[in-house]
Amino acid sequence: MPESWATFGLDLHLDRTGSRVRAGLENTLREAVRTGRLVPGLLLPSSRALAADLGIARNTVADAYGQLVAEGWLTAERGSGTRVADRAAAVQAATATAVQPSGRPRYDLRPGSPDTSAFPRQAWLAAARRALTAAPAEALGYSDPRGRPELRQALAGYLARARGVQVTPDRIVVCAGFTQGLGLLCQTLRNRGATTLAVEALGLAAHRDVAAASGLTIATVPVDSHGAVVSQLGNAGAVLLTPAHQFPTGAALAPQRRSHVVDWAADSGGLVIEDDYDGEFRYDRQPVGALQALAPGHVVYGGTASKSLAPGLGLGWLVVPAKLVDDVIAVKARTDRGTSGIDQVTLAEFISSGGYDRQVRRTRLAYRRRRDRLVAALREHSPALPVSGITAGLHLLLQLPAGQTEQGIIARAAARGLALEGLAPYNATPDPQPPALVVGYGTPPEHALTGAIARLTAVLAPDR
Amino acid sequence: MPESWATFGLDLHLDRTGSRVRAGLENTLREAVRTGRLVPGLLLPSSRALAADLGIARNTVADAYGQLVAEGWLTAERGSGTRVADRAAAVQAATATAVQPSGRPRYDLRPGSPDTSAFPRQAWLAAARRALTAAPAEALGYSDPRGRPELRQALAGYLARARGVQVTPDRIVVCAGFTQGLGLLCQTLRNRGATTLAVEALGLAAHRDVAAASGLTIATVPVDSHGAVVSQLGNAGAVLLTPAHQFPTGAALAPQRRSHVVDWAADSGGLVIEDDYDGEFRYDRQPVGALQALAPGHVVYGGTASKSLAPGLGLGWLVVPAKLVDDVIAVKARTDRGTSGIDQVTLAEFISSGGYDRQVRRTRLAYRRRRDRLVAALREHSPALPVSGITAGLHLLLQLPAGQTEQGIIARAAARGLALEGLAPYNATPDPQPPALVVGYGTPPEHALTGAIARLTAVLAPDR
Repeated sequence: MPESWATFGLDLHLDRTGSRVRAGLENTLREAVRTGRLVPGLLLPSSRALAADLGIARNTVADAYGQLVAEGWLTAERGSGTRVADRAAAVQAATATAVQPSGRPRYDLRPGSPDTSAFPRQAWLAAARRALTAAPAEALGYSDPRGRPELRQALAGYLARARGVQVTPDRIVVCAGFTQGLGLLCQTLRNRGATTLAVEALGLAAHRDVAAASGLTIATVPVDSHGAVVSQLGNAGAVLLTPAHQFPTGAALAPQRRSHVVDWAADSGGLVIEDDYDGEFRYDRQPVGALQALAPGHVVYGGTASKSLAPGLGLGWLVVPAKLVDDVIAVKARTDRGTSGIDQVTLAEFISSGGYDRQVRRTRLAYRRRRDRLVAALREHSPALPVSGITAGLHLLLQLPAGQTEQGIIARAAARGLALEGLAPYNATPDPQPPALVVGYGTPPEHALTGAIARLTAVLAPDR
Repeated sequence: MPESWATFGLDLHLDRTGSRVRAGLENTLREAVRTGRLVPGLLLPSSRALAADLGIARNTVADAYGQLVAEGWLTAERGSGTRVADRAAAVQAATATAVQPSGRPRYDLRPGSPDTSAFPRQAWLAAARRALTAAPAEALGYSDPRGRPELRQALAGYLARARGVQVTPDRIVVCAGFTQGLGLLCQTLRNRGATTLAVEALGLAAHRDVAAASGLTIATVPVDSHGAVVSQLGNAGAVLLTPAHQFPTGAALAPQRRSHVVDWAADSGGLVIEDDYDGEFRYDRQPVGALQALAPGHVVYGGTASKSLAPGLGLGWLVVPAKLVDDVIAVKARTDRGTSGIDQVTLAEFISSGGYDRQVRRTRLAYRRRRDRLVAALREHSPALPVSGITAGLHLLLQLPAGQTEQGIIARAAARGLALEGLAPYNATPDPQPPALVVGYGTPPEHALTGAIARLTAVLAPDR
């Protein structure tokens, strides 16, 4: 039963029942300091006096004071008693600034993120519990810069069967998503004397920024409906490709180009970096196997959990040719001292227990249904607009009608609460591309998809 | 009840009872493929035939085949039936290489890691469950490169009261441990035209490597029993310090030097990077508050969960002067696309619910007892050897007797299963230091501490 007590000039309410007297006293005092009811510098009664006031054991008060001193709310100086710390005022100031939530559009058809509301929270938590209960203490220590052995073992099996990657666990480097992995590779290339990275002429600007920040010069290879035109690689020392599903056009690299690019690498000593960001999501036939399998000594395979599970995990992986492994892990060790061990052992358990496959299969079906709805709506409302890149992934490319600009459509959509993205930001060259939208259907939660598609079709055909 | 069935030439055991027929069939087939009992290329019976054989519904077999095709174990081509995928052989090869466990010494008194067996696994998992249940879906998306708002809010309050940091949430950048944070700062300095980073003449070689990899030249300032001799900073553009507990000597930066270095920064426009790696662990009086509070516009405060919780979390934080925040987050966004959102919301919940304070207080008491035991043993067995740096942290400095070398002691200890580390690896200068050991008492699990201390004292006094 809470009891009101008036001591050192304040009415405080303290639940004294049960065994949680100390915790109750601690919480009461902490809140009083945190909210400013007990002001900085205030002298508290001695533990003996307060204990007598409250009719509780003196040690209980002393323990509570001790905890709050340890937490920095109170100070105790020999001879001057226990006081409210001056820092308490700073805490009030520090936390008074509310963090502004980022303004999020109501509807979002921009590419790049899966539906984070589909993340299997309960299954993940269950895997975390199993993994963390079983993990050795060293899993919580500074890790091997390659990543946890459990995860590399689980990934090796998964990548071999699901993506056809030629892999053993000692060739895998776990990293904080593919962006970090690309950075590690660019720095490795730079350290080995490379000066240039070729990229697809249409691709993520962020990847070009990573390469440039590592000191590499960017060259481009054109992209057409068969993927990157790899016959134009010339003497680039390395190339970054999205062979399974070109980002953002959605083309799969044609078979003869797959052969060509690995021949180029073998002949020139160049390195191919295969960004397999959404290789799990192919809808209309077997997934295209990893390019890496054609030439494991010349291709780095890069994968990520950002599309298959969630970007917020921040987990990716590289499968690195044997001759580069030591260089890459040396760079990783200088970049951070390891990616979260808890998340790594959890993902290992999630893969080994079949949870990862179940999630991929479930979301693949869901995304395929989304694609079908989006394509059907576009064919119905804007039958003249070419749609491409639909056999895989979480986005498609939509050519805009003559006379429309990307910016015009994007602005009209924004006025209806729909966020869209054009093709222009992906263009690595000064040459303009015909106007198009890169429409991502992965991002909206299920309940928002219908509204998002309706707004898109309305914006594309405003006069109907 | 498991039933033995002989079909396509193999005896397979299938549990057909209950509602889990499909799962049982899937598991049976998956294991048979994984272990090589069903060989790559093998044609499986049609779903109709197998269903008839087993007396189960055809859809059950078709669903199981579909799942295994999706997982890559089987392939299904129209017209040629369902076969065991060729990749199955690659999976066997990929996972045949067992990951070698790293050889770990039986006893470990090297510095740098806390006792990872003291990590509060159950409390952490409970916080993860609360946090992940409550988190918005966007916590699983690509995050603000500053880090999750919940965590920055919780850290602002904690750092203000526990470490006296002058902080608001918008000045915090969450990073993958302090090593990454230092890298972000070095690249920011480099981008702004700095050429040199001053470091303490005794310090972590890994930190010097990070700075050098960013293109900065390393200068050194001497270290004595009052910490870094900051009067010798001269015109260095920035300095990395460990003011609360110099690593590895254990000295606290003297008050007049604290004032001097912030004056230096204000006068010269230089930047101080405060590495507060173990500021929570001070035993004999109130923790020394953060240097940053003296000059928040000139000092970056860097903290980490690697000592207070576990290195394997890979979570650290910077509190950055307002004028540098945008530059630092731009570098962070190019380094990775965010540190694990799940770990971030979990840590926020762990701090807000008081779990972090409880863990710090519990481990502070435990480490203090360890220190007392270690110091008492050294005073008893090697009373002539000076011990210093004992008021805080997880390590102390032990001067070696005349005539002993670090390497000699380390080798003798290794022969008894005890890993030790000397001072020499921390020396950033060409000038030799008197031989000493940096003895870390944080690493061993509780049950191994007695044995570790006994071996240390035996090695130090081998002839007694």
